[in-house]
Amino acid sequence: MTSTNLTDDLPAYCLNTAEAARAASYQLATLDTEVKNKWLVMSAERLRQSVPAIIEANKKDLAAAPDYGLTDAMIDRLRLDADRVDAIASGLTEIAALPDPVGEVLDGFTRPGGLQILKKRVPLGVVFFIYESRPNVTADAAAICVKSGNAVILRGGKEAIHSSKAIVDILNQCGQEVGIPEGAVQLVATTDREAVGEFLKLNELIDVTIPRGGEGLIRRVAKDATMPVIKHYDGNCHVYVDADADVEMAATIIENAKCQRMGVCNACESLLIHKDIAASALPAIAEKLASHSIEIVADDAAMKHLTGAAKATEADWGSEYLGPKISVAIVDSVQKAAEHINRYGSHHTDAIVTGNMQAAETFTSMVDSSAVMINASTRFNDGGVFGLGAEIGISTDKFHARGPCGMRELTTYKYIVRGNGQIRH
Amino acid sequence: MTSTNLTDDLPAYCLNTAEAARAASYQLATLDTEVKNKWLVMSAERLRQSVPAIIEANKKDLAAAPDYGLTDAMIDRLRLDADRVDAIASGLTEIAALPDPVGEVLDGFTRPGGLQILKKRVPLGVVFFIYESRPNVTADAAAICVKSGNAVILRGGKEAIHSSKAIVDILNQCGQEVGIPEGAVQLVATTDREAVGEFLKLNELIDVTIPRGGEGLIRRVAKDATMPVIKHYDGNCHVYVDADADVEMAATIIENAKCQRMGVCNACESLLIHKDIAASALPAIAEKLASHSIEIVADDAAMKHLTGAAKATEADWGSEYLGPKISVAIVDSVQKAAEHINRYGSHHTDAIVTGNMQAAETFTSMVDSSAVMINASTRFNDGGVFGLGAEIGISTDKFHARGPCGMRELTTYKYIVRGNGQIRH
Repeated sequence: MTSTNLTDDLPAYCLNTAEAARAASYQLATLDTEVKNKWLVMSAERLRQSVPAIIEANKKDLAAAPDYGLTDAMIDRLRLDADRVDAIASGLTEIAALPDPVGEVLDGFTRPGGLQILKKRVPLGVVFFIYESRPNVTADAAAICVKSGNAVILRGGKEAIHSSKAIVDILNQCGQEVGIPEGAVQLVATTDREAVGEFLKLNELIDVTIPRGGEGLIRRVAKDATMPVIKHYDGNCHVYVDADADVEMAATIIENAKCQRMGVCNACESLLIHKDIAASALPAIAEKLASHSIEIVADDAAMKHLTGAAKATEADWGSEYLGPKISVAIVDSVQKAAEHINRYGSHHTDAIVTGNMQAAETFTSMVDSSAVMINASTRFNDGGVFGLGAEIGISTDKFHARGPCGMRELTTYKYIVRGNGQIRH
Repeated sequence: MTSTNLTDDLPAYCLNTAEAARAASYQLATLDTEVKNKWLVMSAERLRQSVPAIIEANKKDLAAAPDYGLTDAMIDRLRLDADRVDAIASGLTEIAALPDPVGEVLDGFTRPGGLQILKKRVPLGVVFFIYESRPNVTADAAAICVKSGNAVILRGGKEAIHSSKAIVDILNQCGQEVGIPEGAVQLVATTDREAVGEFLKLNELIDVTIPRGGEGLIRRVAKDATMPVIKHYDGNCHVYVDADADVEMAATIIENAKCQRMGVCNACESLLIHKDIAASALPAIAEKLASHSIEIVADDAAMKHLTGAAKATEADWGSEYLGPKISVAIVDSVQKAAEHINRYGSHHTDAIVTGNMQAAETFTSMVDSSAVMINASTRFNDGGVFGLGAEIGISTDKFHARGPCGMRELTTYKYIVRGNGQIRH
């Protein structure tokens, strides 16, 4: 880390931290995969051996939790025990087993005149990662960033600062032993909010900022950052039931998309249904939703087929309830469904239920979302489910990274051009 | 376009324009390649048929040029004649011949449980393109954007506004005839500077802004934009002559990189040379540079081998002269060369001249630039040279697009997930 006295000079501390990360990033970019994997496996072992010390640190966080106003659920997520430390360690060995994205050849060709051109995957450089209180995220993010050749500056929430520090100390001990450059993983040593603002100014040293947390945090970071930001907003996800849908399948998918886990970004918030199938399908769907006590708001046409549904307002179509409520509208065609989704949705995850190939094709090509599902639950938009390996979030941006954001999304590329003395005429 | 009165309500005009582009973008995303190509070929023909009308419009720009303080060189670039209109038309047919990036499958796999996942290339959506006075850029940018499925808002310089309008009118006539959606190509109807600021606020409607012009313009746009910006700064490009270099090759490459065209972003601004070869190589290199009247500034060690070179200041190492001047430094190793380049360079294009494979490998992996050349001139970093087809610029960013930025760089991707009723457990 650095010897700057934080209370004296926060900007200098942040600058030193970012400079150390930048220096480490150049070494990490050429570090052998074996060294990175050895670090991950050794760190996993060391974490398992250090359960008592980690729990000791975690107790300090738990003791302070009431002062921070944490709810019982939040305190439970903060708590570490032997099983949870074991899960964190397993996460590291899983990342060790994933292929190294660095050095992957994306394209290559020989040009007239003999220039040989390779387009090669390289790390982005330095990642500034801002997250809230779960200590497992500390280890995960460090592992994903370093395995993909990036240095990372971890800005964890104050609620988990002792736990995070205990974990990072172990990662860095192991890093020193196997030859991970110093500065590869740095935990911001202050929970002063102004530190975030200082880091966000350093676009010459930090290549990307990834904020994970509530919408307010993400908006604030996106506004203040002078470097690119990968954003993870919540999703206003839709299921559209086409005229040719299997009603039983539609009801099952909507039940799953809405109810399996309500507070997540890929949960369904709005149901669209083709006018020709509304009369037969809506009662069956409503019955499933009622068994989970889901509140329904609907447009006039849908209300005719629903008992007890309230009238939806314009605001409902754009709402992400993240809870036991759903909006329902009837549409005239798959095109109208896609237009509604593009207008009111959040470009996250949207699904069609249909047996009609043309409808599926129209829907998937028109809907402008990171993932479009055909006859499957919106809940499947997830890096683990897609088999992309560990993810650092689900990007709601279109630029650079879209959807599940794993190690590949923390890379860029470089052209390497080999000649034998060619000059340009 | 729109009927809003510009002088009355600039924000409404900009909003209407962006909304029309967004609406068009959804149609463009699914437009058949054949329609786009037909439009390009027809537009090329129509441009050739419309030479007199285009020259007439161009005359108005030329007449106004002195009022705008344009230099003779700038007026020459502004001038259109039959040959130049023909070249613009040929540019369109070349873009018609390039493969359509939309729909390309980037990845695909079937997951346990039977979900079939495709990662498919799709357009970014709406491009806001800001450029200066050359009218050929108007046609080029429109063609690249629309062929890659994007709607484009063209904000051309006031100096070429009549020429640009004549060209866009022809593109849009042809667009209407072949079925390109209205709003796909819009030229901003006002040259009011405030219009740029208005468009830069509209991140819900515009997916990316691309400013092309001087560094001041790009910095201003990057600062004010609320959406991603693809930046094209100039380059502080280096040639490093390794201990194992062929001196004749090194001198030829440096001469080309520095002198073939000095005002461009991939011209060489700084020469680094290994200490063991400086005595034998520097005089030969200096002789070539002297024949082009290049001014040399050098560090103490290099000055010993150069007659008439002035002492370089710290500022010289970071300078992009874009003219007849070069800085020269002696380094102890390829590692030191790479460190110097990463510290002072602009991550654009850097070259090594060497016969040593290990040195080439070390240089290419350490140097953090969009293109790294081995035994070839820096001047080759160019989309056309790389065979990537028409380019909209050379990105100096790492995020999303790096280096030559063509049609592929104006796309993103979407996951399409096919199931048969799967739900998440």
